[in-house]
Amino acid sequence: MKLIRIGTIDHEKPGVELDNGDWVDVSDFGMDYDEDFFGGNGILELQKWVNEHKSTLPKFKKNSRIAAPLKRPSKIVCVGLNYAKHAEESGMKLPKEPVLFFKATSAIVGPNDDLIIPKGSTKTDWEVELGVVIGKKASYVSKEDAMKHVAGYVLHNDYSEREFQLERDGQWVKGKSCDTFAPIGPFIATKDEIKDPHNLDLWLTVNGETMQKSNTSDLVFNVPYLVSYISQFMTLLPGDIISTGTPFGVGLGFNPPKYLKAGDVVELGIEGLGTSKQVAKAL
Amino acid sequence: MKLIRIGTIDHEKPGVELDNGDWVDVSDFGMDYDEDFFGGNGILELQKWVNEHKSTLPKFKKNSRIAAPLKRPSKIVCVGLNYAKHAEESGMKLPKEPVLFFKATSAIVGPNDDLIIPKGSTKTDWEVELGVVIGKKASYVSKEDAMKHVAGYVLHNDYSEREFQLERDGQWVKGKSCDTFAPIGPFIATKDEIKDPHNLDLWLTVNGETMQKSNTSDLVFNVPYLVSYISQFMTLLPGDIISTGTPFGVGLGFNPPKYLKAGDVVELGIEGLGTSKQVAKAL
Repeated sequence: MKLIRIGTIDHEKPGVELDNGDWVDVSDFGMDYDEDFFGGNGILELQKWVNEHKSTLPKFKKNSRIAAPLKRPSKIVCVGLNYAKHAEESGMKLPKEPVLFFKATSAIVGPNDDLIIPKGSTKTDWEVELGVVIGKKASYVSKEDAMKHVAGYVLHNDYSEREFQLERDGQWVKGKSCDTFAPIGPFIATKDEIKDPHNLDLWLTVNGETMQKSNTSDLVFNVPYLVSYISQFMTLLPGDIISTGTPFGVGLGFNPPKYLKAGDVVELGIEGLGTSKQVAKAL
Repeated sequence: MKLIRIGTIDHEKPGVELDNGDWVDVSDFGMDYDEDFFGGNGILELQKWVNEHKSTLPKFKKNSRIAAPLKRPSKIVCVGLNYAKHAEESGMKLPKEPVLFFKATSAIVGPNDDLIIPKGSTKTDWEVELGVVIGKKASYVSKEDAMKHVAGYVLHNDYSEREFQLERDGQWVKGKSCDTFAPIGPFIATKDEIKDPHNLDLWLTVNGETMQKSNTSDLVFNVPYLVSYISQFMTLLPGDIISTGTPFGVGLGFNPPKYLKAGDVVELGIEGLGTSKQVAKAL
């Protein structure tokens, strides 16, 4: 199933993208895509309900705004330097264990909303990433059991201000949390839709030029490893997102570096998870 | 006004501690202490409502569990190395601008709940801190306007696992986010209750022995500076907590370092913000 949310900001409604491409409004199911939905039996119940009501559900117009496909979760846990060639271009060593950092959930926007370049920023950069959506509370979970705690997958652009992140006295969160720095979606693909999360092409272009092009088979630490690992340090709640890291080809890695300016168009996609597009605006 | 929340886990009710010390149940006011409450006119409206209904409000028993005095906020933004002597004991330089990191909101517990020492931890440490509760959305706020965005203050123990934080490949969040690592409360003192947030004694003892003893006048970056500074990097939402950093006297700073073990009793307090007490338990 492909979970979507459609509507203007603060008026988003939950929906499902059907196999024929239609977007149906599932507001009458009575739940938005939040901790209760993912943590309960929401996906299975919704699937049954949609099958029963499919023919009579109201449709969203295809020119509607696509919102992030879940309500604000408790946290976005990001993984740093999780593709070998990206660690190299960042001038950092491949870590022995996953590097974790957070991104403020107030940064979440729809997949095609504008990217707002923060005031004073000269180093706004892109990062296409595979996001994992947690489906079941995870605390001290083994690698073997980890996939039971996954609800699905989603496309994420982990925008990063490199000066804020790396040159402003400590801790990356400062360059990761600006408003609009987490375009998520277009949809959450439930786990059953993605045969192998470790064999998905992913790519990103700026103004049509390919910057990132890789495959999740290159992940240093894979999805069950990450779920298990993170759950040793904190409890992952249903709806929480793990952003699994970005491959080679970010702006920071070019010589000289390439950063975004107003008017630039960033497009990205992951096989099976759709595409998104952000236009950079100055504040 | 002193905002409290009382009840067993997942059954907390909002309340107010009256001047006579009584804890009254304000469930009938119809709002819990969350983003809508702080961001709307919640505090003023509640104050009026309590004045009108004071004599007839049901009372909580004084032996009830005290919960954290707000519903899970969108984020806890912590400030590192914000007291000069603490930076020194941590072996770190005083930063030129605030060091920011996040703590998972899933770590929040009541002020007197047990501290759970994480599996595999040998370096669980304490940090008494002044917490600032945001009352109004803050984005690119000036220092002059910053205090308009503050709803109140709260006592916080920013528990930290030093090995997870400093020796496990990057980013402090790993040692800051374990369950129970954010005991908050006993109450939020609304802004009007605290004449000067920059002149409050704060202290922490372990098994009765004083470890930390300082005053918020020693803060390197003060409250309006922090609100303004953080709002340049991310939007602070109503209910969000800024934890302003800890003074000298954490376990890491002793030679040899002192860390918590099961059975230890940690007590702490800030002038005007009450006291809290956690008993360490092994998992």
